Amino acid sequence: MGTDLYTEPLVSRYTSKHMQALFSPDNKFRTWKKCWIALAESQRELGLTEIITEEALLDMKANDTEIDYDTAAAKEKELRHDVMAHVYAYGGQAPKAAGIIHLGATSQYVVCNTDLSIQRDALASIKRDLIKAISGLAQTVERLKGVPVLGATHFQVAQPTTMGKRFTLAIQDLLMDLDALEWVEKQIHARGAKGTTGTQATFLKLFKGDKEKVLKLDEMVSQKLGFERSFAVTGQTYPRKLDTKIVEVLAGIGASAHWVGTNIRLLSGLKELDEPFEKKQVGSSAMAYKRNPMRSERMCSLARKLMNLPANFHATHANQWLERTLDDSAIRRMDIPQAFLLTDAVLGLLINVGGGLIANTAAINNRMKVELPFLATEEILMASVEKGASRQVAHEVVRDHSVEVARLVKDEGRPNDLLDRLAADDRIPLDAAELQSIAGDPVRFIGLSVAQVDAFLCDIVNPRLAQYGDVLTETQEERVQV
Amino acid sequence: MGTDLYTEPLVSRYTSKHMQALFSPDNKFRTWKKCWIALAESQRELGLTEIITEEALLDMKANDTEIDYDTAAAKEKELRHDVMAHVYAYGGQAPKAAGIIHLGATSQYVVCNTDLSIQRDALASIKRDLIKAISGLAQTVERLKGVPVLGATHFQVAQPTTMGKRFTLAIQDLLMDLDALEWVEKQIHARGAKGTTGTQATFLKLFKGDKEKVLKLDEMVSQKLGFERSFAVTGQTYPRKLDTKIVEVLAGIGASAHWVGTNIRLLSGLKELDEPFEKKQVGSSAMAYKRNPMRSERMCSLARKLMNLPANFHATHANQWLERTLDDSAIRRMDIPQAFLLTDAVLGLLINVGGGLIANTAAINNRMKVELPFLATEEILMASVEKGASRQVAHEVVRDHSVEVARLVKDEGRPNDLLDRLAADDRIPLDAAELQSIAGDPVRFIGLSVAQVDAFLCDIVNPRLAQYGDVLTETQEERVQV
Amino acid sequence: MGTDLYTEPLVSRYTSKHMQALFSPDNKFRTWKKCWIALAESQRELGLTEIITEEALLDMKANDTEIDYDTAAAKEKELRHDVMAHVYAYGGQAPKAAGIIHLGATSQYVVCNTDLSIQRDALASIKRDLIKAISGLAQTVERLKGVPVLGATHFQVAQPTTMGKRFTLAIQDLLMDLDALEWVEKQIHARGAKGTTGTQATFLKLFKGDKEKVLKLDEMVSQKLGFERSFAVTGQTYPRKLDTKIVEVLAGIGASAHWVGTNIRLLSGLKELDEPFEKKQVGSSAMAYKRNPMRSERMCSLARKLMNLPANFHATHANQWLERTLDDSAIRRMDIPQAFLLTDAVLGLLINVGGGLIANTAAINNRMKVELPFLATEEILMASVEKGASRQVAHEVVRDHSVEVARLVKDEGRPNDLLDRLAADDRIPLDAAELQSIAGDPVRFIGLSVAQVDAFLCDIVNPRLAQYGDVLTETQEERVQV
Amino acid sequence: MGTDLYTEPLVSRYTSKHMQALFSPDNKFRTWKKCWIALAESQRELGLTEIITEEALLDMKANDTEIDYDTAAAKEKELRHDVMAHVYAYGGQAPKAAGIIHLGATSQYVVCNTDLSIQRDALASIKRDLIKAISGLAQTVERLKGVPVLGATHFQVAQPTTMGKRFTLAIQDLLMDLDALEWVEKQIHARGAKGTTGTQATFLKLFKGDKEKVLKLDEMVSQKLGFERSFAVTGQTYPRKLDTKIVEVLAGIGASAHWVGTNIRLLSGLKELDEPFEKKQVGSSAMAYKRNPMRSERMCSLARKLMNLPANFHATHANQWLERTLDDSAIRRMDIPQAFLLTDAVLGLLINVGGGLIANTAAINNRMKVELPFLATEEILMASVEKGASRQVAHEVVRDHSVEVARLVKDEGRPNDLLDRLAADDRIPLDAAELQSIAGDPVRFIGLSVAQVDAFLCDIVNPRLAQYGDVLTETQEERVQV
Repeated sequence: MGTDLYTEPLVSRYTSKHMQALFSPDNKFRTWKKCWIALAESQRELGLTEIITEEALLDMKANDTEIDYDTAAAKEKELRHDVMAHVYAYGGQAPKAAGIIHLGATSQYVVCNTDLSIQRDALASIKRDLIKAISGLAQTVERLKGVPVLGATHFQVAQPTTMGKRFTLAIQDLLMDLDALEWVEKQIHARGAKGTTGTQATFLKLFKGDKEKVLKLDEMVSQKLGFERSFAVTGQTYPRKLDTKIVEVLAGIGASAHWVGTNIRLLSGLKELDEPFEKKQVGSSAMAYKRNPMRSERMCSLARKLMNLPANFHATHANQWLERTLDDSAIRRMDIPQAFLLTDAVLGLLINVGGGLIANTAAINNRMKVELPFLATEEILMASVEKGASRQVAHEVVRDHSVEVARLVKDEGRPNDLLDRLAADDRIPLDAAELQSIAGDPVRFIGLSVAQVDAFLCDIVNPRLAQYGDVLTETQEERVQV
Repeated sequence: MGTDLYTEPLVSRYTSKHMQALFSPDNKFRTWKKCWIALAESQRELGLTEIITEEALLDMKANDTEIDYDTAAAKEKELRHDVMAHVYAYGGQAPKAAGIIHLGATSQYVVCNTDLSIQRDALASIKRDLIKAISGLAQTVERLKGVPVLGATHFQVAQPTTMGKRFTLAIQDLLMDLDALEWVEKQIHARGAKGTTGTQATFLKLFKGDKEKVLKLDEMVSQKLGFERSFAVTGQTYPRKLDTKIVEVLAGIGASAHWVGTNIRLLSGLKELDEPFEKKQVGSSAMAYKRNPMRSERMCSLARKLMNLPANFHATHANQWLERTLDDSAIRRMDIPQAFLLTDAVLGLLINVGGGLIANTAAINNRMKVELPFLATEEILMASVEKGASRQVAHEVVRDHSVEVARLVKDEGRPNDLLDRLAADDRIPLDAAELQSIAGDPVRFIGLSVAQVDAFLCDIVNPRLAQYGDVLTETQEERVQV
Repeated sequence: MGTDLYTEPLVSRYTSKHMQALFSPDNKFRTWKKCWIALAESQRELGLTEIITEEALLDMKANDTEIDYDTAAAKEKELRHDVMAHVYAYGGQAPKAAGIIHLGATSQYVVCNTDLSIQRDALASIKRDLIKAISGLAQTVERLKGVPVLGATHFQVAQPTTMGKRFTLAIQDLLMDLDALEWVEKQIHARGAKGTTGTQATFLKLFKGDKEKVLKLDEMVSQKLGFERSFAVTGQTYPRKLDTKIVEVLAGIGASAHWVGTNIRLLSGLKELDEPFEKKQVGSSAMAYKRNPMRSERMCSLARKLMNLPANFHATHANQWLERTLDDSAIRRMDIPQAFLLTDAVLGLLINVGGGLIANTAAINNRMKVELPFLATEEILMASVEKGASRQVAHEVVRDHSVEVARLVKDEGRPNDLLDRLAADDRIPLDAAELQSIAGDPVRFIGLSVAQVDAFLCDIVNPRLAQYGDVLTETQEERVQV
Repeated sequence: MGTDLYTEPLVSRYTSKHMQALFSPDNKFRTWKKCWIALAESQRELGLTEIITEEALLDMKANDTEIDYDTAAAKEKELRHDVMAHVYAYGGQAPKAAGIIHLGATSQYVVCNTDLSIQRDALASIKRDLIKAISGLAQTVERLKGVPVLGATHFQVAQPTTMGKRFTLAIQDLLMDLDALEWVEKQIHARGAKGTTGTQATFLKLFKGDKEKVLKLDEMVSQKLGFERSFAVTGQTYPRKLDTKIVEVLAGIGASAHWVGTNIRLLSGLKELDEPFEKKQVGSSAMAYKRNPMRSERMCSLARKLMNLPANFHATHANQWLERTLDDSAIRRMDIPQAFLLTDAVLGLLINVGGGLIANTAAINNRMKVELPFLATEEILMASVEKGASRQVAHEVVRDHSVEVARLVKDEGRPNDLLDRLAADDRIPLDAAELQSIAGDPVRFIGLSVAQVDAFLCDIVNPRLAQYGDVLTETQEERVQV
């Protein structure tokens, strides 16, 4: 790649070759050829045997891979029409078919059906990565389900939960994304063979008014291109709303990943959690212990762009004039690949990070020790009453000590000695050991966290993953990610 | 309403009382009461009969409608906590339940379950309006399916279609919205009874460690509130991703409506189509003939705001920290009602406009007459060749006349006399009548438009509407719409 | 306010009465009257003394405050035209002017000029609050400039800075907002008297072709309404780009405030910083020590909505068709007040919070103690070499101990005893006191932080605030902020 | 360029080589070298003559152009740190400076200062194109100022204006963009030499506590890099708000261009206006007369993406944590070049299209003829009264005929014969010639349009352009624009 002109970092840095290839010129123009073959084949099967000869068809099929870019480029310069230039170039490669390629079709026959094919395939790739990301997080959640941690609301101490439980929320989000993805897959149909403004007029002429054949043609090309059916009606293009619906799914994955990345970064700042150590990662000699959550930061960064893309698609859809205006062209040409490439990059990171999160129990327990006595006051109160203390007196005693200790901890940086003070206070009928057994055991405070994780994995996550068993055994392509 | 302070125009101008009531304080606080009753009832059914007495429950149920706003307001001033203030106020109304309302619950028990209930109900209302909008457009499409019109790509003349066929695209969009809406309805679950950080810890204490009862409680309250189940796992709140998914459906409706509005406005500018005449509409005496498409403009205006809302929800979801941060509060408080109210307004307009679109055949035909001869040149050429003309000669003749006539039409504003010229040219073996029969009949150019509409309505639209037969007989609430 | 219908929370909860009043019906219709008076007065001054009599003018001026809402509403129902309805109602109040109100004008004469007047006044109010917010933060920054804190990159420990220095960044952002605000103020001109499509045709007729008078009229009404001049050219409305430019300034303030709020929330989670204690704030008895940064959360929440508004304005501007389309109407009616109200709310919070931030030195020092020895290794190394140690040996010794201590701190939760280990290691020629003097004094690590704050306040902030001395002595209206 | 992987269309299709070069690796790494040279030079000038030798400096300067990508890439693989890899590679090229490149600096010293330099230069390029676009439109406006056209509100017929007058609105918008651009240029300062967290601590050590030298260093490098000064305070990076402010200016240009493109497309659909004929444009033989406004469509398409970018920048700015988090990195790396490239593309189109707009007077007059009689009724009425008709009678007569003719025109497609009918009606004392002289001359209806254009160009536009006289004589680089 040259160094004198701008290079898009999505390509040079963040994404899989697999996804880049899906949006490559090669894949686009090969799919155009698939569209032309499907058309010619269907036309022949529907009786146009004299026009579409067998040898023409064979010639087309024999030349379905190589793209003659030079000829196409030269012709495009002359015609200023990329589809006709490629029809011409293909005709050069398959001379027996030269006159019948693209017969009766309009540019959008190849453009739309190709866009739809590529997005369908790209979505399948995203789905595989999504499954892997869910599976990785499920392993993490299983591994960390029994690690009690301080909960946090307002980013302030709240009732404990477990580290594994916490990240079930991410899985639940990603499962909703998966459901949405499966829903949108069902919305993707071919454009089929609909003609310039969607009326099938040219094909009706081609088949001399035989309506049934025209309808059949539409169905046949769609199925040859791997779609169950075509859109019932179209203008010059397939409905732009579909683009929005697809990119909304991708943006949703972005938001889910951003949530994960943000929370890893917060917990990493609290020293409670780390990204997995990267094989190639070189710690700086000066601060070898420092573990910057850079992949999570990058994941958030890419996701932020991804989450804001759907608005563009709404605007394009909502502003299409009549059978079509070409203000959809340049923006879709940029934004559809961008949306898929961003999602590819985000999921690559999520798979990498989510499956190997490391809980730092020492840091977790240190913070817990400071806070648990405060969180335990309600239980201490109840235990005191059970052992005969007056509720009112016990309440006051506990509160007064709490407030004082909290002040000392906060204002003077003292350690939390609330349990010692309560043990030493005669009005509280509990000794140090009893107090410690209440306030020293975080497991008493995590409610059903572990059981929730078990049930969630067993009842919801695993059955879902089992549907995609083959995906989980694939090896994962590494992104450059510099 | 006072005139000295700002009034939100969504309320004062554009939306149905029905939707406004769904997001009213009354509905919110009554649903809070429903949540509290469901909780107490379930707790009693699960064995806490001594704490939750029958008379306490009866007292709660007997006071489930009226909200004591004054007491709540006074208490809130003191506590600065709206949920506890309303617990207190409810206790005042149902004194026998005073100590047991909200037992073991956290604020988000009522807040989340109420948010979810209201959104579920609001979505049901939107669905009804969406069905009506589709039905109205379907009637228009049926009515106008046989009206040939010039097609338009680049907002320039293109192959003819029919006015009805054109608007099937809108229906297809709205059906995708309907599918999405039905999908998202299935994603809505209760938050149930999950406790402060989602661990169910307080309920586990309340039921003295009986895990099964805690799980059952979660299920029971959810079902009493009309949900099939609760979310499997939650932090302090239900997953914010759900909000995004809901508002994406609403935004999608906005985009579909914006497409309709924009195209009505364009066609109205071309004089080919009008919004239905509004009963109360008063034409200005000076320009009585002028028919400004103001409802379509308003529809676009409201839809534009609606389409940009999902980004807010993504940002809120993606930036939630750990079990929850309250940076979700104010924005959701504004944006959730706004999204539903905007959709309500947009659909009110779409129902009003879409069902009664008026095609102006005179204007349509006038434009057609100017353009059809140009569009017919291909057919004229073929007919000439069939009648013995040399293809090459005919092609040149037709092209030369076309270019000349096009120039005269464009540069000098002359009428299109291409057919006359061709009739007069000996090299073209067609007389005026023959030429007229080719180029004068728009129906020859509309391909399968009519058949497409028939099949689309019969196979796709009507079966879908039939599922919602009851909705179509409802009367529609009028919005103020000044 | 009724409780059975939706109430916009911006009004009921978050904003100043002052800003609400600016966007009230009263202010709008009174400004309409100002426009009509300015028009009549100018017309009279330009010679239309027979049409615009002095007593008509006096009658108008005598009735410039009270709005006859009932008459206007009744007339609007009939005419469906709000401006003409208010012309009629005003004529009822000032019968001597009945025929000459709005003479030669189009609706947008009052609508645009009023929109511009209100936005100008609202912007002035925002500017005052912005000055106060900067001033408050400047006091905080001065107060905390000498409090060393750990710096943070990646939300991980980084080179120390001071708490005051850190928040100078917020002030610098807000000063850029202030500059932008002052720039945009200069872009606001009147629409003046331009006629239906901006050609001044009706006024040209009114003045019987006297071009100079028409131009003068435009200038006179503009100046009477408090503008220096009118836009040089307009369509039916003033340029919609201005709206975007204004709301971009507001959104910028939102982003600056969001930065502040986010960082307060992070530092509050690290216990290093607190929002100021609110007078009315009632701590919960159970967790009296907890200080949730709720105002910062709310500030972020409101700001998030605000930051996403400009896209709407771009879309409205970019999609205006020819002299004007009314798809600008409903969305501007909602979004302009929303943008100002959101900014009002955000700044109310920023003033409240930013001026009184509380640094918790105990927590700050505790974290510092753990990290400073690591951050000091470079200096320890240099001091060792100066005292004769071999650089290579010292480097290895320091690194080995650092890595081991970091491991113990992280993995086992041990305190940081790096200095003890180094003091005990013979290869390092520094004793405990010497090591402590290096690594125990945070001030050694904060570079020019204090000097930077001093210079920044003295050279940049204070001179800027001095320009607005009067603002700083105003008392601040409290928002409801529940 | 390979065809097997995705290629960003902004680069391959739409933008100038000039802008691509500004964002190329070459330009980035050369600017890094400039930063390092500026640093070393300043350090030497400030007295570090022993460390920074003259020959080291000379070696650096002698190798300031060529980038050793291979060495840098190999080193980056090892270190995973791009800045240090390039320090190493530079050291290889300039061995005498090997140890002193980047002395005391942090990565963001080169990264930020380079980002700022490139954006400053890119903005200068945008400004030149903006001037050209304004100039081109000014020529069009001058040329078409006297062409009367029907005005349009609601995209319906409204009071006439002129084609030139109409497009003054675009110029006024672009001038506001230019003002904004000039404003933002003044906001761009260097980051200077501020150290890791902005405290200048490492430089303070380097200069052994000499504060004045540290401050001077910051100033000197800034000025050597072409900035007047550096930001007064920074964290690890320069303020992210600046990015937002810059991209808002670019987005504003996008919106202005979108307005132009949209209105060209509408007028082209009405056949009143065409894009200039493109030299290389090949009309299709079938529809040689068709002139699709494809450049305007593309301009709208690109602008739509551009207009939605600022939200990303707000989100990045508003969510930066403390001294810096790296979630700003990937998104800025994509979005900053995208914003500039999009603007470059948009302005390339605007320059191309705006300067040569073609008014089709035949079509304009044809539409005018149909509508003008209706628009003239008010004047006809006045003339009738002047010639003795009763106002009431004349009013009724005119209205009745108008309504009837409007109906015939609309419902039956008849030509507008209102003037004939009025001439034939005895109650109207005007003959055909008199009526024609009123309703047949569009110039009577355009008010001050021409004078407005003259004044606008003379008083506002031309003086502004005169400030940039040199720009207007540059030749314009062509974009590929396929």
